[in-house]
Amino acid sequence: MYKINENYLKLPGSYLFSNIAKKVAAYKEANPQKDVISLGIGDVTQPLCPAVIDAMHKAVDEMADGTTFHGYAPDLGYEFLRSAIRDNDYKARGVDIALDEIFVSDGAKSDSGNIGDIFAENNRIAVCDPVYPVYVDTNAMSGRTGEYLPEQEKWSNVIYMPCTKATNFAPELPKETPDIIYLCFPNNPTGSTITKAQLQEWVDYANKVGAVIIYDAAYEAYISEDDVPHSIYECDGAKTCAIELRSFSKNAGFTGTRLGFTVIPKELESNGVKLNALWARRHGTKFNGAPYIIQRAGEAVYSEAGKAQTKEQVAYYMNNAKVIMEGLKSAGFHVSGGVNAPYVWLETPDGMTSWDFFDHLLANANIVGTPGSGFGPSGEGYFRLTAFGTYENTLKAIERIKAL
Amino acid sequence: MYKINENYLKLPGSYLFSNIAKKVAAYKEANPQKDVISLGIGDVTQPLCPAVIDAMHKAVDEMADGTTFHGYAPDLGYEFLRSAIRDNDYKARGVDIALDEIFVSDGAKSDSGNIGDIFAENNRIAVCDPVYPVYVDTNAMSGRTGEYLPEQEKWSNVIYMPCTKATNFAPELPKETPDIIYLCFPNNPTGSTITKAQLQEWVDYANKVGAVIIYDAAYEAYISEDDVPHSIYECDGAKTCAIELRSFSKNAGFTGTRLGFTVIPKELESNGVKLNALWARRHGTKFNGAPYIIQRAGEAVYSEAGKAQTKEQVAYYMNNAKVIMEGLKSAGFHVSGGVNAPYVWLETPDGMTSWDFFDHLLANANIVGTPGSGFGPSGEGYFRLTAFGTYENTLKAIERIKAL
Repeated sequence: MYKINENYLKLPGSYLFSNIAKKVAAYKEANPQKDVISLGIGDVTQPLCPAVIDAMHKAVDEMADGTTFHGYAPDLGYEFLRSAIRDNDYKARGVDIALDEIFVSDGAKSDSGNIGDIFAENNRIAVCDPVYPVYVDTNAMSGRTGEYLPEQEKWSNVIYMPCTKATNFAPELPKETPDIIYLCFPNNPTGSTITKAQLQEWVDYANKVGAVIIYDAAYEAYISEDDVPHSIYECDGAKTCAIELRSFSKNAGFTGTRLGFTVIPKELESNGVKLNALWARRHGTKFNGAPYIIQRAGEAVYSEAGKAQTKEQVAYYMNNAKVIMEGLKSAGFHVSGGVNAPYVWLETPDGMTSWDFFDHLLANANIVGTPGSGFGPSGEGYFRLTAFGTYENTLKAIERIKAL
Repeated sequence: MYKINENYLKLPGSYLFSNIAKKVAAYKEANPQKDVISLGIGDVTQPLCPAVIDAMHKAVDEMADGTTFHGYAPDLGYEFLRSAIRDNDYKARGVDIALDEIFVSDGAKSDSGNIGDIFAENNRIAVCDPVYPVYVDTNAMSGRTGEYLPEQEKWSNVIYMPCTKATNFAPELPKETPDIIYLCFPNNPTGSTITKAQLQEWVDYANKVGAVIIYDAAYEAYISEDDVPHSIYECDGAKTCAIELRSFSKNAGFTGTRLGFTVIPKELESNGVKLNALWARRHGTKFNGAPYIIQRAGEAVYSEAGKAQTKEQVAYYMNNAKVIMEGLKSAGFHVSGGVNAPYVWLETPDGMTSWDFFDHLLANANIVGTPGSGFGPSGEGYFRLTAFGTYENTLKAIERIKAL
């Protein structure tokens, strides 16, 4: 008799955003007349920019003609896209990344889950707490997290690095030594970030203890302050200890278009084995490339027009973040984030739990947010609002919260 | 110090088609004046049909407008696509599949690799020999295949089911009991297939011994004979033992467009655990959906125009298959396949090895095919040609082979 992967049975409940979607659907069904506004899941609302739309129409036409049709893509992704990535995301910031260190994918969520494939089961992971649930859940699926302890809402074999008001929402170097460290800056969910000097400490630490950093830079386009690094490779020595994940979802609105990439420098080795080669093997064996049309869309993000247009989009969302921050502050809430990231992290009022506040906000203001505790135990007492709504809805939502 | 997944180090060489691509690139660089024709990798050459092109242009325009923009897709895929799949691929064949038993993905290659995630490491797999390399390689990556034995070109813990001339290129029930059985009909690489009665034997066997069948039906659109099943669920009892993988790559030319789906019936249980729920959890946690534009393209394949146009494409390729079959036969080759599948399987002449014949054909006829031994030890002495070239190139290639 075949055996299932029993690790799946250890997972508590279902994926956070699936849970929220179910709660919201139930509320809407019971209250069809209510105008529910979601500032919950980090999904964008602005349409794709004209440069991207034009590139996709052109690529669709190419697919209609036998002489310009594209079948299977190259394993690592089309060179036109990888060149644009190398030049704009790295060279322009003084970072030297080779074309075959860039792996184009269908998004950072897939990559952040799949990257675990190239590591042994007996690695101990360290995550920020709160944290994007995918890092922990996918490691749980691989048997790397030990047992789930419901009372603590923690896994027995995960090193949690609390990011709370007391730590200025940044993790401190862990007391126990991890093998794999997940870092995400600008951070989801707290919207906080760290300086280049602070990230350098993490790189130095990882190199010292022989850990690998999975660095999720999905929100780098939202950085507004000068001393915040856009890539971990801006730090000295990062190439020997870090993998970087990037996404087109938030900088260019590709949440429903699906494109991302992972960078694995060839200097990154474990006992002489290059992680770049392992990932190349996985990428070539278990994946068949992002669609040609979508890779052309990604290339267009780096065109002059595309850069200007996506910059405007980011500014639009960051204006929403400002509206949320200022509105909540004036209503007496304690808020953080929102300056280098499209997420505002607020303390729930009157000692409410995160889920109580979720229910309260949904029922009384018809606003959907994300309970901080859904991202980890140290998220309890916090709540995430995203700046990805429309400006009109964001204004309306904040007025409703102020009126509570 | 972090540890890598040592199973990757056991993998011999690189992925078959990457190897071929390297050999061909080297030949072309050394012989830039040669007109190399590929009947090797199973990549299509005909453009996407007008119904699909129209649907994609329309979907691109929707993404350009805030009121019709689409962000994150539903976990299982859009209902418009899953309904079309249910109605056309299943209901129309008398098979009752529910919408939440269909999981839309970025292709059958990804699914056939990723499906292993929901099974324990200590399952023993059985595969046809020769076989699509992804099934074996991805299980090797998960530590399920034992050690690689270079002299036998086999893994120590895999049950190989030879499919040779002696078995009419169909597998026989294995002597040792497997936990997971991979079947692909119409078959890649041999182009052979089995009847519904034969497949029923496999379903009965799997139910009897408690095995699960991973049924890859990527080539079902090429079936021309009546008693060949298009879905394993046409067999009684398949819902309690089988997962079916489907692709848009070959029936609609989506190799570079990327779309597929997996069906997991809710009746499929292991000790009371539904595999459907496990895959739903994986799908929701490690994947973020196929692009909206591509899901609309998939829907268009099932429109009346789309069905007529893709049927014409399949007929075009099957005419190529006929050209290959008849040409090779008249040149004295022994061939099989090519009737219900776009692959022709030929015996290498004069006792040549598969790779010798590959080199011979590349050097002397400038034709790229795929060495049978690349698909497994029982593929030695065979060679795969695909019908996915253009008609003109296929004719030219066969003339060249005949002239050898």
